[in-house]
Amino acid sequence: MVESSGEVQFFSYNNPLIAKLLKNDGRLFDVASAGAVLSWDEEAYMPKGGADSRACVTATIATLHHKLLTSKKLARLIERLENALQANPHDFTTHDHLLLQRMSRDHRRATKVSAALVEKISKAHSEGLLAWRKARGESNFKLFQEALAKVVELEKERAVAIGFQGSIYNYFLDEHEPGLKVEDVGQIFEAIKVVIKEVLLKVVNSGITVNQEFLKSKLPEEKLGKFCEVLARAMGFDFDRGKMDVTTHPMTTSFTQNDVRFSVRYTEEFFTNVIFSAIHEAGHGLYEQGIDSRFTRTSLGCVESLGVHESQSRFWENCVGRSPMFWDYWYPVMLSYVPEILSSEVKPMDFVRAVNKVEPTLIRVDADEVTYNLHIILRYEIERDLLEGKISVKDLPEVWNAKVKEYLGIPVPDDKRGVLQDIHWADGSFGYFPTYTLGNLYAAQIFAAIKRSLGENYFDRAENYADMRPIQEWLREKIHGFGATINSRELIKLATGEEPNPKYFRDYLEEKFNVIYGW
Amino acid sequence: MVESSGEVQFFSYNNPLIAKLLKNDGRLFDVASAGAVLSWDEEAYMPKGGADSRACVTATIATLHHKLLTSKKLARLIERLENALQANPHDFTTHDHLLLQRMSRDHRRATKVSAALVEKISKAHSEGLLAWRKARGESNFKLFQEALAKVVELEKERAVAIGFQGSIYNYFLDEHEPGLKVEDVGQIFEAIKVVIKEVLLKVVNSGITVNQEFLKSKLPEEKLGKFCEVLARAMGFDFDRGKMDVTTHPMTTSFTQNDVRFSVRYTEEFFTNVIFSAIHEAGHGLYEQGIDSRFTRTSLGCVESLGVHESQSRFWENCVGRSPMFWDYWYPVMLSYVPEILSSEVKPMDFVRAVNKVEPTLIRVDADEVTYNLHIILRYEIERDLLEGKISVKDLPEVWNAKVKEYLGIPVPDDKRGVLQDIHWADGSFGYFPTYTLGNLYAAQIFAAIKRSLGENYFDRAENYADMRPIQEWLREKIHGFGATINSRELIKLATGEEPNPKYFRDYLEEKFNVIYGW
Repeated sequence: MVESSGEVQFFSYNNPLIAKLLKNDGRLFDVASAGAVLSWDEEAYMPKGGADSRACVTATIATLHHKLLTSKKLARLIERLENALQANPHDFTTHDHLLLQRMSRDHRRATKVSAALVEKISKAHSEGLLAWRKARGESNFKLFQEALAKVVELEKERAVAIGFQGSIYNYFLDEHEPGLKVEDVGQIFEAIKVVIKEVLLKVVNSGITVNQEFLKSKLPEEKLGKFCEVLARAMGFDFDRGKMDVTTHPMTTSFTQNDVRFSVRYTEEFFTNVIFSAIHEAGHGLYEQGIDSRFTRTSLGCVESLGVHESQSRFWENCVGRSPMFWDYWYPVMLSYVPEILSSEVKPMDFVRAVNKVEPTLIRVDADEVTYNLHIILRYEIERDLLEGKISVKDLPEVWNAKVKEYLGIPVPDDKRGVLQDIHWADGSFGYFPTYTLGNLYAAQIFAAIKRSLGENYFDRAENYADMRPIQEWLREKIHGFGATINSRELIKLATGEEPNPKYFRDYLEEKFNVIYGW
Repeated sequence: MVESSGEVQFFSYNNPLIAKLLKNDGRLFDVASAGAVLSWDEEAYMPKGGADSRACVTATIATLHHKLLTSKKLARLIERLENALQANPHDFTTHDHLLLQRMSRDHRRATKVSAALVEKISKAHSEGLLAWRKARGESNFKLFQEALAKVVELEKERAVAIGFQGSIYNYFLDEHEPGLKVEDVGQIFEAIKVVIKEVLLKVVNSGITVNQEFLKSKLPEEKLGKFCEVLARAMGFDFDRGKMDVTTHPMTTSFTQNDVRFSVRYTEEFFTNVIFSAIHEAGHGLYEQGIDSRFTRTSLGCVESLGVHESQSRFWENCVGRSPMFWDYWYPVMLSYVPEILSSEVKPMDFVRAVNKVEPTLIRVDADEVTYNLHIILRYEIERDLLEGKISVKDLPEVWNAKVKEYLGIPVPDDKRGVLQDIHWADGSFGYFPTYTLGNLYAAQIFAAIKRSLGENYFDRAENYADMRPIQEWLREKIHGFGATINSRELIKLATGEEPNPKYFRDYLEEKFNVIYGW
């Protein structure tokens, strides 16, 4: 599907229809980019008093985007181009075809959903978030129930309007991982459940208790922030084309591949949280910075698969950043920035064990690399059944608590630490959770492929972690550059030689936690 | 013209035509606000790599704004409302009338300038800025000459398209100070020249030499920044509705009166520069925060007169911030933040003298409060003659150097420290300079009015500088609240009981520098 970069021109710039399509796409990109700047500003910089007016500005920009995307002019242009491409497909480049497909899909989706429904959904999301915050504050799911039911109802209405095949949940998967079907996820997750059970059993049987207490240290924020930037730079993050900020929730955004911002927060229990979230977000950031510049200001210059996006953050955070050899190099560097956080009695390997401690817990975002996936699998099963109508909103706490007991072996003491812990459902982000575990899966498979390419022992040499750009370059060539031109299945196959296969994740966990827990 | 606030409703919200006008105006506001966020982000946060794409985004947003402002729908609405207001003027509030006037004016101006001319001007500005930077770097006016000639030509073309009465320079004055005519400025500036000559002579005759050397201190940026924020808060700047940032050039912006950002820079020779620029910009910021909230998201919720805007920054910076009693209170506080910057031998009054030293210099932005206005007057005279066609672009260095010699008594050694020092002409900001001196003039007149209101000795009591909100409240009530509903002449008269009168500036300078130089 994708031409090799460099020799061939991406788009038929001299074809007047393609030029027009690119101009339209550029304008849509600009408006979306303005919206992204507005929302990043809101998270990272805006004083709280600005919220009301900002909501109006954001809504107006979103409406203008919707108007441009659904305009009759654009509809006519798409139709003319579809005819031209059908009549003379070889007059056009592969990227012309891909761009048209993408714009045609976005245009049709946008026209299928009425402005009235968009407004109703937007309102339901706002009310959902409000109710969720209140309910979580009081640890009372009932306060969220009605608003959530409305969100579910309207999201299903949108799914029906846009259309789907098979389970309605396929619509939500497709929104976050184009082409993914509920059957595929089910199969993968069943396999993962087995893998995790095995690893967990070995951890328990190892008899080792890992001490994490020394990670609970007061944060010298400025110095830790500097260290985070040094790490991101060593990974290849280009600060001439990006920036690190501070927000309430760590995240990454891209206005173009030349302006990528990621954020950290300093409010966590362990001082290491900020370091790993910086590595994680910088991993996302590298993806955005690595998109081929010829896709700039086009619909293809973005990442559609959140699973692959997450594979990048998790590859850097877990496969690289939580590995013993990474810290063999970086531990002394970290102490040179923040000597006060650890006593000299803590040895590098104690530190590595501490940041890899495996233990079932109630809260997803605090979970370790192994049990994390159980949190995802239970959320996936619940939201799938919810959207397919097999369970109803009011049953969620009961279903949740039963699943947590079954998968993690812990009783849920209250809604706050149970069904109310995540923001996702409040604004209708169904189908999002599975991409987190898919990311872990892809990450392990990519890790194995990089080893085959750079050498089996590449990651065992501490000096290779000083400058990690060879890894980044591999990722750019095999993954980042493609933007939105191929789906995750094709991309993983192209990059690793094989379709997504949970075996790599099993091998990765087995090998890594064998080192940590020494079974 | 303006109703007292509170009792009367601002707009006829229930009149469907007014409601529609407000909706249109709100949308225009939103798009302009998005543009303002984009350009503030560019100055304060954006990594340099983002520049190219950002230029496209900004241009697209500007184009959308222009389209909305010149739309036929809006034209019809304005026409219907103009007829309705003419037929039944008493069915509408004063603010309905003002809003319609304002939107009608903006709409008509926008339609008079063709999209082609707008694009040509925008390009000429970009090229002007580029050429100016290069020319200034090499201190060679010839490298700027051609680009500047183009800017002048196109700006004059726009002035002709939009129209003006009398001198073409009136168009440029009106852009920055609505209603101001070249005759008024000429008269005021002639009076000011005399005042300054008198004060300068007294300074020279005082025989006092002021030492400024101890202000040349390395900046402990973080601590100085904290002190600046403390000062801004004491002035009444609301950090829940605003923020202080760092940029290359200090400035202030407002996305709404609930999100006002000002900036400082830390690159100056004297450590006090950042303090005074913070006070200056916070003064601008207070104006924006003080606009009546009922003007939110309307065309009346802004400040049209840059002279009055500048009066606020200069009132705070000079009348308040450079006064002996201000430092009587704040000097020890400053030293508690940055004890390292001054030796204990420097007494508060030495400090006050140092930050008020009067001495003719070559560079406007480094000039003292007295000679500063000579820099403005010579720029005004030159740009007026340039636009009226009495001198040509190629003659600028010669004319400049002669005026500097005449007014400031110093030979200009090179273009960099002469005609190339300011950015304003490069992007066609003609008519802007005069507002700086008008600001000084208004500031002195407002200062006198506040004294009459709060008590002649109010400013002589150090304890009154701890919390300066009574001053801010006076300004809000008499000046800030009105937004764009009246022009500067009316506003100054309403606030001070008198039309702009240079006498107050003379009295202010005489009194202040008598204290500093003790003649």
